[in-house]
Amino acid sequence: MEPLLIGVDVGGTNIRMGVVTPDGHIPKKIEYPMDMSRGGLAMMEGLVSRLQDFIQQETGRDRSEIRIGIGIAGSIDMKRGLLVTSPNLPDLHGFPLQAYLQERISYPIIIENDANAFTLGEGWKGAAKGSRHYCGITLGTGVGGGIVVEGEILHGSEGMGGEVGHMVLNPKGPLCGCGGRGCLEVYASGSGIRRRALEANKKGKGKKILKKGRGDIKKVTSEEVFEAAKEGDRTALKIFNEMGRYLGLGLVNLIHLFNPEKIVIGGKVSKAWDYFIGSTTEVVHQRTMKGQREKVQIVQTECGDDAGILGAAYVALKLE
Amino acid sequence: MEPLLIGVDVGGTNIRMGVVTPDGHIPKKIEYPMDMSRGGLAMMEGLVSRLQDFIQQETGRDRSEIRIGIGIAGSIDMKRGLLVTSPNLPDLHGFPLQAYLQERISYPIIIENDANAFTLGEGWKGAAKGSRHYCGITLGTGVGGGIVVEGEILHGSEGMGGEVGHMVLNPKGPLCGCGGRGCLEVYASGSGIRRRALEANKKGKGKKILKKGRGDIKKVTSEEVFEAAKEGDRTALKIFNEMGRYLGLGLVNLIHLFNPEKIVIGGKVSKAWDYFIGSTTEVVHQRTMKGQREKVQIVQTECGDDAGILGAAYVALKLE
Repeated sequence: MEPLLIGVDVGGTNIRMGVVTPDGHIPKKIEYPMDMSRGGLAMMEGLVSRLQDFIQQETGRDRSEIRIGIGIAGSIDMKRGLLVTSPNLPDLHGFPLQAYLQERISYPIIIENDANAFTLGEGWKGAAKGSRHYCGITLGTGVGGGIVVEGEILHGSEGMGGEVGHMVLNPKGPLCGCGGRGCLEVYASGSGIRRRALEANKKGKGKKILKKGRGDIKKVTSEEVFEAAKEGDRTALKIFNEMGRYLGLGLVNLIHLFNPEKIVIGGKVSKAWDYFIGSTTEVVHQRTMKGQREKVQIVQTECGDDAGILGAAYVALKLE
Repeated sequence: MEPLLIGVDVGGTNIRMGVVTPDGHIPKKIEYPMDMSRGGLAMMEGLVSRLQDFIQQETGRDRSEIRIGIGIAGSIDMKRGLLVTSPNLPDLHGFPLQAYLQERISYPIIIENDANAFTLGEGWKGAAKGSRHYCGITLGTGVGGGIVVEGEILHGSEGMGGEVGHMVLNPKGPLCGCGGRGCLEVYASGSGIRRRALEANKKGKGKKILKKGRGDIKKVTSEEVFEAAKEGDRTALKIFNEMGRYLGLGLVNLIHLFNPEKIVIGGKVSKAWDYFIGSTTEVVHQRTMKGQREKVQIVQTECGDDAGILGAAYVALKLE
């Protein structure tokens, strides 16, 4: 009997879980906000409880084999099942996540970085289907990435590879949460877009952006900067143009290092695709070598919000 | 019977070839200057002739199986055996190198990028022995690199991956031969060191460097800048310090993307190790995440000038 899969996507603001069939359909899924008010451990307890309920309700009694895959933001030591660092769970650094979950849930569980899960989801059912050499990038609150080499996700020696968001693009650039400066993440993330909107506001620019924030620039979201861009706000348009150029520099590095067939870009910021992709492809064209440039396709997510669930389920499917 | 291997390292100024035993010893090797005076094709004809002589003289009559591996600078399309671009052989762009050689030499031949060969040589017999996740960097006239993932060199979809030298570190930096700006190569190569010496000279700095060039700064080599550093020339010391910092930025990117156990650094510029490695490790310490930084060792080549021959032979050994 084929296993039934549960894919879980632990994001920065929401948790999504879905029943996934071995051929990649999602007959049932739920989404609920991630409650961080009582800290990371309480959040984990909540996750376990929700997951137990979901399994019981959705999988029926006669399923002999269930496997669970969980994608979670952060640097994961896959060998030891540790959450080494996590941007959303600062009180759980070094947390033995795999063991914690496995003690509470009787079905086999595997954890994976959320951007790796996104990447695998796109390779399984989305924009990189059939590709054996590709990269995935998630433009969310932060910037995540996954690298597939010869059909396998690149984990590196400890499972912490593929940290695309922390490539240095400008050594004197703004400070990043990782301790570095001028990483891709400070330019191409939702936080980076907000930062640029704040900086523009200080110079008296971006009136439509300010309006979106109901007069308080500090409350403006990256989605609202995008809204302002759609309405033709010149500052907002400039912000996405600049963001696209830095993203392009990041892609140049990925192309030189990995010679991929495809680069799939997802995450909420990728919804502003038409507002940044022009400058991205321009930079890629200017700065890569001909042989490499000709082959690579830069494409938008096809799985959208489901990519994380699909990829987490895929990891569980491939569990040995 | 085990195959006898011939490893060939086609560098920018010299060609080295060696007989290599299947356990990685080099009982015999030769080195001769690369003659580019009559163009790339004449150089190739010379290489074939030398190689034929070398095989005849050194391998005896009773060897039933001989395999030849050739490491050569440039972007190589391994699927089709093409030399897509090569810094030293500008007139051979797109040249069908594999077919050309195989038509002239009856033993099996495999071509590989020279920095990949260096990297594999270090993994086989040198500083990365036993490691399954590591990177190799060659600091020569240019900067090359090789990435090993799960024990295999990363070729990417067309065999053009691992172009470490063309990671963008500073988007407004000096123009690079690849068409980009501020690539690792413009900072950490021998050419980059010469460029900095010239720039310093224009400002009236680096008297000992100028002296090494017998009064003509344009004739100064990167080795001579190193000599001046050893004699305490402050400008030369500063040049290597700065070069080390950019190299560090490159390593930060490799560590974030590949989570390697080791990074092995070779090439002629690496001989100035003690003059740049301090600032390199400082930058790596400042800009990488704890979990990744703790694991990685940054080490100097152990095979030295033999790494290329060994790695090319290793590729031939693994030929299926």
